[in-house]
Amino acid sequence: MLSPTSSQLLEGADLDAALDDLSATGADFHRRGWSLGTSSNYSVLVGRDPLELMVTVSGKDKGRLGRGDYVRVGADGKPVEAGAPSSSAETMLHVVLAEQPGVGAVLHTHSPAATLLSDRYARDGVLRLSGYEMLKGLAAHGTHESTELCPIFENTQDIPTLAEQVRERLTDAEHPLRHGFLIRKHGLYAWGADIAEARRHIEVFEFLMDCELRRLSLS
Amino acid sequence: MLSPTSSQLLEGADLDAALDDLSATGADFHRRGWSLGTSSNYSVLVGRDPLELMVTVSGKDKGRLGRGDYVRVGADGKPVEAGAPSSSAETMLHVVLAEQPGVGAVLHTHSPAATLLSDRYARDGVLRLSGYEMLKGLAAHGTHESTELCPIFENTQDIPTLAEQVRERLTDAEHPLRHGFLIRKHGLYAWGADIAEARRHIEVFEFLMDCELRRLSLS
Amino acid sequence: MLSPTSSQLLEGADLDAALDDLSATGADFHRRGWSLGTSSNYSVLVGRDPLELMVTVSGKDKGRLGRGDYVRVGADGKPVEAGAPSSSAETMLHVVLAEQPGVGAVLHTHSPAATLLSDRYARDGVLRLSGYEMLKGLAAHGTHESTELCPIFENTQDIPTLAEQVRERLTDAEHPLRHGFLIRKHGLYAWGADIAEARRHIEVFEFLMDCELRRLSLS
Amino acid sequence: MLSPTSSQLLEGADLDAALDDLSATGADFHRRGWSLGTSSNYSVLVGRDPLELMVTVSGKDKGRLGRGDYVRVGADGKPVEAGAPSSSAETMLHVVLAEQPGVGAVLHTHSPAATLLSDRYARDGVLRLSGYEMLKGLAAHGTHESTELCPIFENTQDIPTLAEQVRERLTDAEHPLRHGFLIRKHGLYAWGADIAEARRHIEVFEFLMDCELRRLSLS
Repeated sequence: MLSPTSSQLLEGADLDAALDDLSATGADFHRRGWSLGTSSNYSVLVGRDPLELMVTVSGKDKGRLGRGDYVRVGADGKPVEAGAPSSSAETMLHVVLAEQPGVGAVLHTHSPAATLLSDRYARDGVLRLSGYEMLKGLAAHGTHESTELCPIFENTQDIPTLAEQVRERLTDAEHPLRHGFLIRKHGLYAWGADIAEARRHIEVFEFLMDCELRRLSLS
Repeated sequence: MLSPTSSQLLEGADLDAALDDLSATGADFHRRGWSLGTSSNYSVLVGRDPLELMVTVSGKDKGRLGRGDYVRVGADGKPVEAGAPSSSAETMLHVVLAEQPGVGAVLHTHSPAATLLSDRYARDGVLRLSGYEMLKGLAAHGTHESTELCPIFENTQDIPTLAEQVRERLTDAEHPLRHGFLIRKHGLYAWGADIAEARRHIEVFEFLMDCELRRLSLS
Repeated sequence: MLSPTSSQLLEGADLDAALDDLSATGADFHRRGWSLGTSSNYSVLVGRDPLELMVTVSGKDKGRLGRGDYVRVGADGKPVEAGAPSSSAETMLHVVLAEQPGVGAVLHTHSPAATLLSDRYARDGVLRLSGYEMLKGLAAHGTHESTELCPIFENTQDIPTLAEQVRERLTDAEHPLRHGFLIRKHGLYAWGADIAEARRHIEVFEFLMDCELRRLSLS
Repeated sequence: MLSPTSSQLLEGADLDAALDDLSATGADFHRRGWSLGTSSNYSVLVGRDPLELMVTVSGKDKGRLGRGDYVRVGADGKPVEAGAPSSSAETMLHVVLAEQPGVGAVLHTHSPAATLLSDRYARDGVLRLSGYEMLKGLAAHGTHESTELCPIFENTQDIPTLAEQVRERLTDAEHPLRHGFLIRKHGLYAWGADIAEARRHIEVFEFLMDCELRRLSLS
């Protein structure tokens, strides 16, 4: 519903509703400790022709977002309107993900579990999530008898380079990026056809990482 | 109050109140992390003759349930009305449980503790909960000097077979199912005479599993 | 303010305010996981001559208490009015505590930390809490350089006997009960001059037990 | 915005808004378990010439603060108005911090993580936080490739002496205090140009300490 096709534009009351949903999502993620310290950023696709997203303005408290805390950006990750406040440097990651067909929303969180597991398994370059019923919450997993390979990228402040790495993996024939990825000691990116699906993917990944982290603390 | 006998039907304002209570229960379970990622499903008995339940529609966000997010199903687990949205494949588990005399509500949750403990004790086929005062919150435990044997079933996408296994255990002479059971790396089912008792049973099991999991992480 | 002297009676709007405060306290404790599964009970002193308390009615959901969920009991722990719903069997513990001069409210919680630590240190018969700044939140601790000895009683369904044990310890010359005690694999009792102080004592104990439990899980 | 320069005074509706923001911050910190048991204290700068702060009155429940729960104090940490309720003995720490140019708000929390880590690393006298993306939430960290040295002071009830130690470290040429410090088995102090920045700093430190504590419990 909130995932516009190339000929549609998310505008007016629909756009307001989408931003309100993103803000409610942020309040919930902040409460859960997944978006503390003004970290994280969220976006929703507004149009495909040309590509436009509404992205959270940089440095906003994710527990208190309002409609004025989003900025419209284009395919270059820059604000469409002159003088608009800038979004996070990581906006180019949102753009690269939103360019994929069928992606209507992108959510990025900073949880303790994502921070710790992305460091612990950094050498492997991947977090393996296997055999959990909850995996069925990721689109296209029809059974729990499957494995989600969640890639881990090294953290960097060179976002254009990271965005290129992500773009390549999105079309990697052997190990394509499917629902989300981790950045080391940084956090999680997940996406979906609309805000609800992206939120479901974040919740599934955070649940599974919480399980993995607790499992590692058992004697 | 909300547990109809064979001659009663839950309808009108009573049915609305029951669905609102299920939705409030879902919001609380979602907040606690027991029903993330649109996982879980909840049901309330509507009538016994013929058997009818209101069950959550598949794929709904359990933190935001409304009256329209339930579907009326019959003894075959299928929607009573043509064209109605389908409920979870696991609806047959709800039906099998609701067929028991005195069962008025069934709740299914996906918590980290249930996920991890059902895997750790899978070989035993049972989670033993012993000596806790909180056990008195399960109907018919009059003292803490008792043990609740919570069976663990292997996870499967073959729900009819699992439903048959559950049905057999419900009438097992030696080790009958009493208040709840686990499915491996999946979650918890518990039930009660009405929504309040089913919710109490879920809270008791989740509390006790939380204690067991924390105990296993102590040095 | 809510701690009546022998000549005062908590009644009318003051009593309503006290019950509303107890109910709000219950909602917070339920949210935190300290009063799940309809466990726990709370009371406030209504008068000293004769001794009367308002105590939570047995089996109520502590996250949804209303004014009608309390019953007035006397020094024998029984309802003052014929036909009133009964309170918990543990009401006599509330009575024994409320008989102490200066005690105006008693709160009992069932947290995972209290459940686990009361079992781990049962052989010692006491939980030692030492050197924490938070100890200053217990009345009469003027410095962190002190130790709170929190006694642990064996759990029993024989409440009259337990109540006698508590009564003796309250006047024990060497190791008097001061702010709270634990019952093994069961929970915590704490009290104060009024509801606010009793709640502060519960929060302090639960905080300190949370610290102790986490400390025991560090490698 | 809420950080007055030497010629400005925070008054009227602006002051009310600042106190309401502090109270909302307290409610959130109390909910998270960072300010239980009436512990913690918060302040906002009201004026610089002379130095005046609004500080929480001693012993207030941090989950229920209202505008009347703050007291105006001067550079000596004493109430400006005769007969006003007194603030915490730790008010002098707020004063010493607020005397620094650019500091408009000071927040002090008592979390389990701060309590445990300040004890574990007391011998080192410092908690090292290194390589986390979340460090960028502390003002002046432009990259995750940096280390925050969070000093740990021994706990004491001699606040004037502690305040002097803090004052010296604030201007220490080699290891200046930058965003926060810990007191052993007691808690965290952090500050910022305004309430929002101070809250962001608390959230960042608490997040990072949570990560460190969980890391220490992994096998």
